[in-house]
Amino acid sequence: MVITLLSDFGDIYPASMKGVILGIDPDANIVDISHSVPRQDIRAGAFILMTCARYFPSGTVHIAVVDPGVGTKRRAIAVKATSHDGEIHYFIGPDNGLLIPAAKSIGNIEVYEISNTNLFQEKISCTFHGRDIFAPVGAHISRGSRIEKVGGRVFDFDDIDFGMGIKMNGSIHGKVIYIDSFGNIITNISGESVDFRSGDELLIEKRRAIFGNSYGFYKEGDPLVLVGSHGFLEVAVNMGNAAKMFCKKQGDEIIISI
Amino acid sequence: MVITLLSDFGDIYPASMKGVILGIDPDANIVDISHSVPRQDIRAGAFILMTCARYFPSGTVHIAVVDPGVGTKRRAIAVKATSHDGEIHYFIGPDNGLLIPAAKSIGNIEVYEISNTNLFQEKISCTFHGRDIFAPVGAHISRGSRIEKVGGRVFDFDDIDFGMGIKMNGSIHGKVIYIDSFGNIITNISGESVDFRSGDELLIEKRRAIFGNSYGFYKEGDPLVLVGSHGFLEVAVNMGNAAKMFCKKQGDEIIISI
Amino acid sequence: MVITLLSDFGDIYPASMKGVILGIDPDANIVDISHSVPRQDIRAGAFILMTCARYFPSGTVHIAVVDPGVGTKRRAIAVKATSHDGEIHYFIGPDNGLLIPAAKSIGNIEVYEISNTNLFQEKISCTFHGRDIFAPVGAHISRGSRIEKVGGRVFDFDDIDFGMGIKMNGSIHGKVIYIDSFGNIITNISGESVDFRSGDELLIEKRRAIFGNSYGFYKEGDPLVLVGSHGFLEVAVNMGNAAKMFCKKQGDEIIISI
Repeated sequence: MVITLLSDFGDIYPASMKGVILGIDPDANIVDISHSVPRQDIRAGAFILMTCARYFPSGTVHIAVVDPGVGTKRRAIAVKATSHDGEIHYFIGPDNGLLIPAAKSIGNIEVYEISNTNLFQEKISCTFHGRDIFAPVGAHISRGSRIEKVGGRVFDFDDIDFGMGIKMNGSIHGKVIYIDSFGNIITNISGESVDFRSGDELLIEKRRAIFGNSYGFYKEGDPLVLVGSHGFLEVAVNMGNAAKMFCKKQGDEIIISI
Repeated sequence: MVITLLSDFGDIYPASMKGVILGIDPDANIVDISHSVPRQDIRAGAFILMTCARYFPSGTVHIAVVDPGVGTKRRAIAVKATSHDGEIHYFIGPDNGLLIPAAKSIGNIEVYEISNTNLFQEKISCTFHGRDIFAPVGAHISRGSRIEKVGGRVFDFDDIDFGMGIKMNGSIHGKVIYIDSFGNIITNISGESVDFRSGDELLIEKRRAIFGNSYGFYKEGDPLVLVGSHGFLEVAVNMGNAAKMFCKKQGDEIIISI
Repeated sequence: MVITLLSDFGDIYPASMKGVILGIDPDANIVDISHSVPRQDIRAGAFILMTCARYFPSGTVHIAVVDPGVGTKRRAIAVKATSHDGEIHYFIGPDNGLLIPAAKSIGNIEVYEISNTNLFQEKISCTFHGRDIFAPVGAHISRGSRIEKVGGRVFDFDDIDFGMGIKMNGSIHGKVIYIDSFGNIITNISGESVDFRSGDELLIEKRRAIFGNSYGFYKEGDPLVLVGSHGFLEVAVNMGNAAKMFCKKQGDEIIISI
């Protein structure tokens, strides 16, 4: 089965998680989503996981660890998400909202508290539950353990709400949910909620930008607005850095007018 | 089968491609060549792919995406390359020259236009053909689909010519085709075209450099010229950065004299 | 079988090693430990390998290449490490100390000089033994070749000693063995050698730090000392960079007082 990994661990630390996984499930096909989530940035991690998870096949186990509360009493959870056509994805990680938007993007969710220490590594480090708890639990599920074995079902789990753009007086007020490594500004405005056409002139805080389908039609340095591959409105600059041009960082408000 | 990935996507985006691939070919063994190709730098991507592809086993599918024209009318192509001893490599990507030097480094090539939409993802993003077209087409070929199924054969595909060094008055005039992450300057002068011996004194634009076999024999900070692992003349500085020392960037001319 | 890779190659070069491995052992499950070891820093590479290796399953082959002497007469070695409960790990790389701390962390070791050229690639580059010697030798062992086939046993191999902290007048004098990508300072003081309790006030060179179990209990910017996931004392700053705060780099002395 496929196991994906997402974390803010940077280099080195993910390898031990992979060793633990392969010791339990030698046939696991491990895919890194990213280990460069901005440190302790749960919202960024939740967004990345949400945009990637659905592209993996049914049965995939997603282990995600952005976990500022590691070693404190925060819960560990395992989530089973079932799509309307019966595909199943599992999500393993801390109970801080990280997993829930991704799980909901698949379909209906059931959340279980991870408490069955038989599934853990023998020695538990206080700072590396990714290796000692989440990796082995994910590998056991990938190998066929039923999710009910991890612990009891819970209903009061943390969630993250990315919100959505709000239309006011011909403008859309949204929020920056992520800046990617190219400086593209990804907003919380769903592409389905707008009816711009290719070539429409928009204003992003007094600067003109064209609505378009793709980068290839624009001049270097031109700002453009498009529906990104994740389905949200994205502000990009052809061969440039939109976050710098518009001085935006994650969490900022962004106003797009026609 | 093995599927390699090369792109300028940086972090995050390659994961969705892998999810799509594993949904079609669960046994694919996916290897990242690099996702840090300088953005939209087709020549750098073509060079990297050319130097790596031959080391993979027969049957490997190479999916490569450095694609400034994504979403415009540029063609998508699939290439079958057959070596003189019958090894076969496949290359999937945009028709902008990226794939051709690598394919030719294997042997004889046949190029097909990708037009069979049955092989694509259901929804096609305008900015992410890597995920929605190239990944599924590559996975279908890896799983056994015949390349002729992707579309008709074409002969007017784009190519990239890295050229080769030119000998003039005891000097060799070449070009910088790539600067690697250590600052080593890789030229388009084939190692087989020169007859330097280890210890020969060379001049690189007024600065002395020794021709050698390896880094280990030289003092820290010494410039040296060697035949790199890719088979081209390379200018390196032991424990230093040759591109900075010689103020060279990709595309620059470089003159080596004896 | 699992094959891990560790190197200071950065981007691009590891891919050719993977191609060579998969040509010999198509079922190899390749895991990158890191390719961002500081360039030619054998001690850093040895430390990282030592902290990761034990988490992989029995039978894993670890190929590690931090190799300033490549192309000179330094030996290449293959090491078999057997734990007290019969688990076996193999280590392949240069004879410069890189492999030995990791191999010893598994158990008893036997060291063999790699000299059987039948196991190499046909053409040997002078600068890339990772691809042409270490990768194929590791893949042959992963596929079942006996380690004795690589060459004769040797006993005068290089080793690295990370030392251990020394207690003097109520202080512990240790050394910085690694700075991770978050700026955490990892010392050579074993967690088992100290008897601090959570909440103890310590002094690190005139600055107060609390001994604790995890990051989550401390304020942003607070320095803390903990037993890291690798088992050594680590100095961290919650949401900050300890190496910068304490002006420490690898190899520096560090004094912790109660």
